[in-house]
Amino acid sequence: MTVALPSVTDVESAAARLGEKVRHTPTMVLHADETGLPARVVLKLELLQHTGSFKARGALNSVLSLDPRTPDVTAASGGNHGAAAAWAARRAGMRADVFVPGTSTPAKLDRIREYGANLHLVGGDVGDALEACRAFADSRGLPVIHPYDTWETVCGAGTLGLEIGAQVPDAELVLLGCGGGGLYAGVAAALADTAVVQPVETELCPHLHAAVAAGEPVWHPSKGVAADALGPPQVGRLGFDTAVSRGTSSVLVTDEAVVEARRFLWQRLRVLAEPAACAALASLLSGAVTPRRGSTGVVVVSGGNNPAVP
Amino acid sequence: MTVALPSVTDVESAAARLGEKVRHTPTMVLHADETGLPARVVLKLELLQHTGSFKARGALNSVLSLDPRTPDVTAASGGNHGAAAAWAARRAGMRADVFVPGTSTPAKLDRIREYGANLHLVGGDVGDALEACRAFADSRGLPVIHPYDTWETVCGAGTLGLEIGAQVPDAELVLLGCGGGGLYAGVAAALADTAVVQPVETELCPHLHAAVAAGEPVWHPSKGVAADALGPPQVGRLGFDTAVSRGTSSVLVTDEAVVEARRFLWQRLRVLAEPAACAALASLLSGAVTPRRGSTGVVVVSGGNNPAVP
Repeated sequence: MTVALPSVTDVESAAARLGEKVRHTPTMVLHADETGLPARVVLKLELLQHTGSFKARGALNSVLSLDPRTPDVTAASGGNHGAAAAWAARRAGMRADVFVPGTSTPAKLDRIREYGANLHLVGGDVGDALEACRAFADSRGLPVIHPYDTWETVCGAGTLGLEIGAQVPDAELVLLGCGGGGLYAGVAAALADTAVVQPVETELCPHLHAAVAAGEPVWHPSKGVAADALGPPQVGRLGFDTAVSRGTSSVLVTDEAVVEARRFLWQRLRVLAEPAACAALASLLSGAVTPRRGSTGVVVVSGGNNPAVP
Repeated sequence: MTVALPSVTDVESAAARLGEKVRHTPTMVLHADETGLPARVVLKLELLQHTGSFKARGALNSVLSLDPRTPDVTAASGGNHGAAAAWAARRAGMRADVFVPGTSTPAKLDRIREYGANLHLVGGDVGDALEACRAFADSRGLPVIHPYDTWETVCGAGTLGLEIGAQVPDAELVLLGCGGGGLYAGVAAALADTAVVQPVETELCPHLHAAVAAGEPVWHPSKGVAADALGPPQVGRLGFDTAVSRGTSSVLVTDEAVVEARRFLWQRLRVLAEPAACAALASLLSGAVTPRRGSTGVVVVSGGNNPAVP
C-alpha cells in the first residue's frame, strides 16, 4: 500500500502560509578547488533557520494549519523538532508540551525550555517519547505535531526545496540528510520536475535504507554521531513512499566521513553545523556520490544545534 | 594634510580584479521581533569569506596588483590579515613570510601555517610585528602586504560594500567594526552615494575615536575582547581621512555589549562570529545606534576566526 504524496502545489500552499514567518536561508557556492569535485557545489545554509534547523518549517506549517483556537499542542522529538514545535507554538500563541528521550543533548533541551514549552523527559528512545506524547495528547484531546510523517510537516519542510529551486535554478542534484524522511519527501515534491533529490543516511542510522531493503518501514537501531537527529524509530511512510515511487534508496556514509565534512565546513566557511547536518556533504567529499562533470549540485546543511555554545 | 581617497570606480576595478576568486558572501534578514528595533536589519555574513574574514579581499587585491613574477610577499598582522595574506600569496603562486605579535590566538597562528606561510613570532604588539616585517622586507627587496592602510587593501575591502549595494539596495545605514580602518574606508568609498557607513569600535580599542579627537592618527592601547582583531597600533591614514572628510567618528560599544551580540548571533542564527566581528551588531542591540524607523540597515559580521574548533 502506498499513500498519496504531496505535489509541488501542496508545497506552494505551505509556502504561502509560512510567508516571511520562516527565514529564507541563503546559499553559498564552493569553489572547485575547495571540493576537488568536477561540479559546482552550492550549500543551502539552513542551519541559519529559526531554532537552528529546517524543522521550524514543518512545525510552523503544522501549527498554522490547526484551528487557531487550539490552546495547546504536543510534540515528541530527539531535540530539533521539539525546539521547532515549541517555537512554532509560541509564534502562534499556543502552549506546547514536548516529550523528549533521554538521548537528547543538553543544548537541545535548554532550547526547548527557552521557547517556553513544558518539557517531559522520557526514558528510552524517541519512539518511547512519541508514545508518551500520544497518550498525553489523547487524554486531553490535543493535537500531536509530528516530527516528519504528516502532510503538513512534509509540505512545510518542502518549502526549503522551493527556495533551492529559486536560488539555484540549474541544480540537477540535491543532497540532504534523511532521518524520518520528512525533509526528503517535501523537497522531492517541491523539485519533482527539476532535480534529483538524493537522501543520505549514516551507516549507523540507515532507516530508509533498511526500509527499502525490507519493502516497508522497519525498526532499526540509531547509533553514532548523527543519532540524535537522524534517529527516528523508523522512516516515515511519506519518506519511504517517496523513495519507492522514484525507485531509489539512500546513500550511506560513515561517521568518519560525517566528522570530516563537519570539520571542512568549519575550516573553510566558519559554519558550525551539527553532525547530522553534515551527512549530505559527507556523501560528496567522501566520494559516495559523484556529481556529473560540469553540473551543479546543492547540499543542504540542515541544522546547527551543536552542544558548543559560546 | 589629507590623502586622496578611493572612489567607487577604484573599488569597482578591484572587484573586477578579484572576480570569483573571493566569495560573494550572503546576507540574512533579521525579523523585527528578534531585534526589537523599528528598522529592518540585514546581516552581511562575511565570516563565510575565505580565511574566515573580510581580510581575504584586501590581501588578494594587493597580491594580484603586484608584478606576477614577485616570488615572495611579507605581511604583519594580529592574525586575520596574516591568514589572508598567506592564503592570497598561495592563490597567486607566491610564498609569504608572516610576522605576528605574541598576542595572536593559537587558532589564528595555526591557520597561517595551514596556508603554507613562514610564520615569524615577534614579541610585543602588532606594531612591533609590522616593524620586524618591514626590516625583513627591506633587506630582501620584498613587498609588504599592508593589513589596512594602502590603496589596494582598502579597494579590495571595499568590494564588500559593492556587494551590499547590490544585495540590499535600500540600505541607508551600514555598520561595521573598525580596527585599522581599511574596511571602513573601502566600504565608505563603495557606498559613498547611497548609504551612511558608520564605523564601530570598542571602548577598549578606540583608535579612530582617539584620532578624530586628536586631529590625527595617534597611538592608543588595545585591550578587551576585540583586541586581537581591532588592535592596530593606530588607525590608518585612509580610514582616518575618510571619517574626517565625512565629519564623523566611530560609535563606541562596551565589551559586554560585544559579548551579548556574539551570544545573540549564536542563539538566533547559529553564526559563531569572533568578538571583533560583533561590535557592529552590538551598537544596534545595545542602543548605541538607533536606526530610523522603517529604514533598512546592514550589519557586517566580518569574521569568524574563533578559538573554538570542532
